[in-house]
Amino acid sequence: MTYGEPIHLSDAKKIVAAAQAEAAKNGWNMAIAIVDSGANLVLLEKMDNTQLGSIEICQAKALTAIKFKRATKAFEETVEKGGVNLKILGMPNVIPVEGGEIIVKGDKIIGAIGVSGALSAQDTQVAKAGIAAL
Amino acid sequence: MTYGEPIHLSDAKKIVAAAQAEAAKNGWNMAIAIVDSGANLVLLEKMDNTQLGSIEICQAKALTAIKFKRATKAFEETVEKGGVNLKILGMPNVIPVEGGEIIVKGDKIIGAIGVSGALSAQDTQVAKAGIAAL
Amino acid sequence: MTYGEPIHLSDAKKIVAAAQAEAAKNGWNMAIAIVDSGANLVLLEKMDNTQLGSIEICQAKALTAIKFKRATKAFEETVEKGGVNLKILGMPNVIPVEGGEIIVKGDKIIGAIGVSGALSAQDTQVAKAGIAAL
Amino acid sequence: MTYGEPIHLSDAKKIVAAAQAEAAKNGWNMAIAIVDSGANLVLLEKMDNTQLGSIEICQAKALTAIKFKRATKAFEETVEKGGVNLKILGMPNVIPVEGGEIIVKGDKIIGAIGVSGALSAQDTQVAKAGIAAL
Repeated sequence: MTYGEPIHLSDAKKIVAAAQAEAAKNGWNMAIAIVDSGANLVLLEKMDNTQLGSIEICQAKALTAIKFKRATKAFEETVEKGGVNLKILGMPNVIPVEGGEIIVKGDKIIGAIGVSGALSAQDTQVAKAGIAAL
Repeated sequence: MTYGEPIHLSDAKKIVAAAQAEAAKNGWNMAIAIVDSGANLVLLEKMDNTQLGSIEICQAKALTAIKFKRATKAFEETVEKGGVNLKILGMPNVIPVEGGEIIVKGDKIIGAIGVSGALSAQDTQVAKAGIAAL
Repeated sequence: MTYGEPIHLSDAKKIVAAAQAEAAKNGWNMAIAIVDSGANLVLLEKMDNTQLGSIEICQAKALTAIKFKRATKAFEETVEKGGVNLKILGMPNVIPVEGGEIIVKGDKIIGAIGVSGALSAQDTQVAKAGIAAL
Repeated sequence: MTYGEPIHLSDAKKIVAAAQAEAAKNGWNMAIAIVDSGANLVLLEKMDNTQLGSIEICQAKALTAIKFKRATKAFEETVEKGGVNLKILGMPNVIPVEGGEIIVKGDKIIGAIGVSGALSAQDTQVAKAGIAAL
């Protein structure tokens, strides 16, 4: 898949609003980041009382997704296999934890979302709820 | 002045919305960051086509303001005095450029805003327009 | 000016080849970097016996140019004015030394070039010779 | 094996051209870096639409190879052994993923190549195709 033009702020806002609605519905406090197709931060929102560490983690998830054109869950599954696959832990700036998803428009990658604050499967649930709103 | 409780995301959104309205009215593309009283990022929005460097600069301004309880213009004025005052340029993570302002509620500092994208006096204009909306 | 799509490697190669020809003609050893419109490195070439520090500096110049949509000479001139303008020295990841130039195609910025290795005016001369080949 | 004099840019270009030909033949988009015997970047080329993360990863592979005088596959095999060998994951700036190879001329190490963009075995295939051209 190829990189497209950078996501617009208006689209990023739609995604984050929907993601936050999903988080709020479940009572989760989360930090959510959107980066564009050039791996630059476009939007970040930290809900009240979110664990502070999530501010960095949500950005790391979004950046890993955009830089490797895949959901961060792919790296988590690599770790899960164990053995030599643990090599992934030695890759700089790759966070092998789900909750990062690419954002596709047409057939191009225009950005990525990263979510952190709850269990990582819940982070993914929120990320996907956000993307679904686009 | 003392630090108060961290700014709420809802208040940060009001500030950024007003700041963006001021920017848009003037045709400026800007990146705007809000940090809380603990120097943690709460909200960042990059308007479409803003110069990419402003993503880092707006955060640097907000962080400098909150960490030193003053507008970044104070550090700019220190540079202006010259001589030994230039020592300020050797302080890590202090950006001596206006456009960073503290956000006060009651008599407590609850956060700071940083704006980057236009001339630095214009950055301040936008930051103040944002704060005025609180 | 707005950011366009990322410069192609083939165009980056044309620019660097022409820049190197200009450098070689003058007997200068240089490091030359091209970044794309998203501030990502596309091409870097270090000529034999170039001072090692230029590897980092040429990237810093290219990144400053793309991130602020202007030649790095603009920041050098700001420093030259002295007084309060020295504040520029406190901006993170801004190198105020000429030799970084944006690359424009149509009316869009598609990337930037950074050159280091000789006097900074010579760095600019080489950067411009490169861009002229596009 | 001892370090020799730094690889020439002209040799680095031959290697990268051959590596890219191998990549293109297989339809892979890759980033390729060459460092010299002093662990300094000499040449980096990112093919169009390569995943952005490969820009950093290819450099990490080349640097790990030159700094430890061995192919990065050696570190990958260390991880594969498991147990205490996983300590390798705690070494700073060591990437235990194949795709980094030293470049030898005569009996001296003159540089290293790092490749990223496809499966790591494919990265090695491309790295070796490049070195074979020297």
